[in-house]
Amino acid sequence: MTVRIAIIGAGIMGADHARILAQDVPGAVLQVVCDASQDRARAVADACSAADVSTDPLATISRDDVDAVLIASPDDTHAPLARAAIAAGKPVLCEKPLSQSPEDCLSVIEAETAHGQRLVQLGFMRRFDPSYREMKDALLRGLIGKPIMMHNFHRNVEALPNFTGKMAITNSAPHEFDVARFILDTDYRAISVFQPSAINTAKAGAPVFMVLETDGGQLVNIEINNNAAYGYDVRGELVGESGSVEINTPVHTRVNSAMTASERYAPDWRPRFAEAYRLQNIAFVRFVQTGIFPDIASDAWDGYCATVVAAAGVKALESGQRILISHIGKPKLYA
Amino acid sequence: MTVRIAIIGAGIMGADHARILAQDVPGAVLQVVCDASQDRARAVADACSAADVSTDPLATISRDDVDAVLIASPDDTHAPLARAAIAAGKPVLCEKPLSQSPEDCLSVIEAETAHGQRLVQLGFMRRFDPSYREMKDALLRGLIGKPIMMHNFHRNVEALPNFTGKMAITNSAPHEFDVARFILDTDYRAISVFQPSAINTAKAGAPVFMVLETDGGQLVNIEINNNAAYGYDVRGELVGESGSVEINTPVHTRVNSAMTASERYAPDWRPRFAEAYRLQNIAFVRFVQTGIFPDIASDAWDGYCATVVAAAGVKALESGQRILISHIGKPKLYA
Amino acid sequence: MTVRIAIIGAGIMGADHARILAQDVPGAVLQVVCDASQDRARAVADACSAADVSTDPLATISRDDVDAVLIASPDDTHAPLARAAIAAGKPVLCEKPLSQSPEDCLSVIEAETAHGQRLVQLGFMRRFDPSYREMKDALLRGLIGKPIMMHNFHRNVEALPNFTGKMAITNSAPHEFDVARFILDTDYRAISVFQPSAINTAKAGAPVFMVLETDGGQLVNIEINNNAAYGYDVRGELVGESGSVEINTPVHTRVNSAMTASERYAPDWRPRFAEAYRLQNIAFVRFVQTGIFPDIASDAWDGYCATVVAAAGVKALESGQRILISHIGKPKLYA
Amino acid sequence: MTVRIAIIGAGIMGADHARILAQDVPGAVLQVVCDASQDRARAVADACSAADVSTDPLATISRDDVDAVLIASPDDTHAPLARAAIAAGKPVLCEKPLSQSPEDCLSVIEAETAHGQRLVQLGFMRRFDPSYREMKDALLRGLIGKPIMMHNFHRNVEALPNFTGKMAITNSAPHEFDVARFILDTDYRAISVFQPSAINTAKAGAPVFMVLETDGGQLVNIEINNNAAYGYDVRGELVGESGSVEINTPVHTRVNSAMTASERYAPDWRPRFAEAYRLQNIAFVRFVQTGIFPDIASDAWDGYCATVVAAAGVKALESGQRILISHIGKPKLYA
Repeated sequence: MTVRIAIIGAGIMGADHARILAQDVPGAVLQVVCDASQDRARAVADACSAADVSTDPLATISRDDVDAVLIASPDDTHAPLARAAIAAGKPVLCEKPLSQSPEDCLSVIEAETAHGQRLVQLGFMRRFDPSYREMKDALLRGLIGKPIMMHNFHRNVEALPNFTGKMAITNSAPHEFDVARFILDTDYRAISVFQPSAINTAKAGAPVFMVLETDGGQLVNIEINNNAAYGYDVRGELVGESGSVEINTPVHTRVNSAMTASERYAPDWRPRFAEAYRLQNIAFVRFVQTGIFPDIASDAWDGYCATVVAAAGVKALESGQRILISHIGKPKLYA
Repeated sequence: MTVRIAIIGAGIMGADHARILAQDVPGAVLQVVCDASQDRARAVADACSAADVSTDPLATISRDDVDAVLIASPDDTHAPLARAAIAAGKPVLCEKPLSQSPEDCLSVIEAETAHGQRLVQLGFMRRFDPSYREMKDALLRGLIGKPIMMHNFHRNVEALPNFTGKMAITNSAPHEFDVARFILDTDYRAISVFQPSAINTAKAGAPVFMVLETDGGQLVNIEINNNAAYGYDVRGELVGESGSVEINTPVHTRVNSAMTASERYAPDWRPRFAEAYRLQNIAFVRFVQTGIFPDIASDAWDGYCATVVAAAGVKALESGQRILISHIGKPKLYA
Repeated sequence: MTVRIAIIGAGIMGADHARILAQDVPGAVLQVVCDASQDRARAVADACSAADVSTDPLATISRDDVDAVLIASPDDTHAPLARAAIAAGKPVLCEKPLSQSPEDCLSVIEAETAHGQRLVQLGFMRRFDPSYREMKDALLRGLIGKPIMMHNFHRNVEALPNFTGKMAITNSAPHEFDVARFILDTDYRAISVFQPSAINTAKAGAPVFMVLETDGGQLVNIEINNNAAYGYDVRGELVGESGSVEINTPVHTRVNSAMTASERYAPDWRPRFAEAYRLQNIAFVRFVQTGIFPDIASDAWDGYCATVVAAAGVKALESGQRILISHIGKPKLYA
Repeated sequence: MTVRIAIIGAGIMGADHARILAQDVPGAVLQVVCDASQDRARAVADACSAADVSTDPLATISRDDVDAVLIASPDDTHAPLARAAIAAGKPVLCEKPLSQSPEDCLSVIEAETAHGQRLVQLGFMRRFDPSYREMKDALLRGLIGKPIMMHNFHRNVEALPNFTGKMAITNSAPHEFDVARFILDTDYRAISVFQPSAINTAKAGAPVFMVLETDGGQLVNIEINNNAAYGYDVRGELVGESGSVEINTPVHTRVNSAMTASERYAPDWRPRFAEAYRLQNIAFVRFVQTGIFPDIASDAWDGYCATVVAAAGVKALESGQRILISHIGKPKLYA
């Protein structure tokens, strides 16, 4: 069964998703590309042979020839558009965050609960990354014993000029919050945030270091360093009572030259997580085809949880205090 | 445009190709699965939602609802079936070898020449492997200077019981012959073959070590070790006058346990070259759609060249002598 | 000039130092081995061809045929014995800690100050480890820009049964406190301590995670994990504004077997830091010969600083609070 | 017991040995530095606090205050000086080669045989390198099964202007011949030599690739590439029936910068094999002290064997033929 997909938002992520669906995902038809800019929508539609373009997201979502929706528009539109898709009964692959407001996330959860089944797959694509999957698998197979700590490092080459430490917590860290929570199968209880003052911490992309305590009793440590300069580099290590497992960055060659052996870093997250995006989007199309929510994918509840942690992280950053994290009980739909 | 493909041969490779086309290649429709065993054809067809099955390859090839053919049947059928596809004017993705007989390879080349355009894409999938592509790219970008040597290692966990040193040369080594020739953009001039006598060289899977000299003046050294026991492991290093480039085996995690840090090997070639097969098959579908032969893919001429080298290698093995390699001039069609 | 050394303490560390001096350090003569147990002293003396044994440390220190003293006796004897050596005007290589009491450390500093020159070289041997030296060198050469964070991991195979989280801070962590302080050339301002509750944190060897803030504005993060089980593993990464530098664990071979590529961990700190101990002890002998305190070695002031941080760390552990670190001004002698 | 050593030859190797003995080898006293150039001898003697200098090697060897001799003079003096030391009944650490002439090597063997015990320790220092020792240990412990192939790579940054392919075989390759023979505990039966013609093989430092067949039935493959440009790089892999073991190059740090992770190569053999030289020279001093020839060191017989292989290699290079290797039976003294 062919799935006709509308992409809302034709920026970097939207264009990427359009390309992935067109080139790498059997069973997907790019039906509509919708963007506030008709030109931008048209450019992406042409590049990926989409059938139609639009500038009206709500009308797009409700079209009869659209089976499913991929939301890649600005962050503050994610929740309202997700609710619109739920209202139309259509599955959604929604880029993270679901919303930066916990309340707004809850509104999506309420809409889904009312609808009676999960329709929103959230774009925490790292769950589909082969490295993280092998890490979780190593844990489940008992290779490292009971988990006690997880170390996470997220490094970008360069942050946008207006990027702040707070944004590191609300925009970058949620990927770490989600994937550690996924691997450890637990929620967070408290968060402490530190910043090196060696560089102006108000400065764009100032690094943030977080220590999270989980309900399961683990420590989850996270460095977000969006001006790391040397390359895009995501690392992780899960430490257990009898061993540890580390994710490798896949690198295809090693060059010996000029007195060094060297391996290249990716310039950004897209080559590093290309396989994760591909597998995530294939899983989404299968979800639309079968109605069965993908086992390992994030849902609206996961999106809410990540946002709650990020909000607590901002408080911890601003207060310099360890902040307790609290959220509502998990609705039955997500059990 | 959707491409309707018939797969001839539903053994290991055929089943793999069917799965890849069904799961990973947009634009491909698995139209027919053809195998001497109707049951085997049916099993693969069911697993991959193919439209129809058959036990008659020639009839399958000529069906109106078949746009292109993927040949994964026993080696000695490759050339005749490729000729049949050419006769029907249909593009073919043919598993290696084109034939183990140079003459038989030439018959396909003659058929293509008569037809006036290349229809046969040969399944030397390593050309699509990201590691080899980066190696070639490093060479072309001048990172290592003029190439002078290439070291290649092919290790399997375990050979089939009836596997011989000769078969190592005719069945396994052609992948190395082709990919080194592709990267160096040259042909071979001579081959010498050595075997360690520490193990019975008549024994199944006895290792073979080859030194090839190229027209470009490089040495290409190849170890084929099909009973390496420890894992499936393909390595390669290209040495130039100012540096060298090595291919890495992509490994997703590293486990620290029991006094060691360890990374796992793949059990066979399929996980190691999964991405190469996916990209090769996507390129084939695009070839069918556009009529433009994929830039980097092997063609019938490449298949002939690999077979000529293998035949010389067998002579070198049997005689203990350095054997000169000669082949016909390259027909214009392949220039 | 031959240097006649007395070793005080013939336990594990004392026996190691005796062996290193005898086998690896030209110019050193093992004159006396002194231990509360005459048998233990005798065993070490015989193994390393020492001239004499004793059970009286103070008498040993004051012997005319002893030029210098190596203190490897129980921790609480370090400071008094160091003071005795200073009183005798003899150079001392003193195992860490100088003392677990800041006041006791200050008493040594006062004695040295009164004496007018530094005599106590403290056994923070990591400063001599080639990896840490290359790390510092990379920083000084500007390879990574201004430093902003340092990540440190200390993992033992198994802690002694009576080992506590508090002891992790006072016994293991000082190596990390000192080496990070050495590399960053700064003091500490505050410390926060976390423990995973997934395992009983009162339990022997319960892991500790610390975040230290330096006067230079860096974050220094330290995991002490003395029951890591999988091997002895010390890691470190220094992150700067334009790059980072990581220390490698030297491993001599890689074994491919049973579907894995694996590298072995050391069972404890001695093989890992063998070269550091050798270079440290060579530096000490040269110090005795020349009277010039080794450039990179730790002195009594460094020992005091490490102890002050450890004491603050214990308070942070017990209170769950971020603890500010304060110490006296640096005496001129150590400027 | 202190050993008084005379170093014959104060060139690069002689100066290195003087420094190693002075700084790293307890029990050694540098008694005389002897060189044709008095100034060069004096410079080394001063740098390493040697007692005396000389320009007369034979007189130096026979001095009463010289217990042992280290020969680091030009290659063609090695054998005559070794014979002189044997005549004086003094142990010798002789730099490789013993001689480039098999006959000359035999003259030393005859002298030792007449003397009745081994006095010549040959400077194939790789046997003391921790990586090769671990490789041999892995073999002996059965980690890789029966050995069948060994791959060896020797790469220098840049060859001297007058360096030829023939010299690669006679000057560089003997290290490989010896260490592979040591690890495999076998002799060689035949050698084939190849050169890439992509570069002028008459040119300085033209690379050489050799395939050796051992009496034990293994293949030993050796690349000598003295103009590799990118760094000093020695690699080795021993392949057995159930696994393989590779030597690692010890590297102390990894630097992340400018979109790459990189590790540095040594500029030449001295940092790479510093530990091997140190352990070799310590073993030599112990040999002098105890009269017991070091277990793992090369002796005159090993020197003869390496020279015989090199001579056959030159014939193979010049003739383009596979050359059989023959040598005399091993004298009892070396059994």
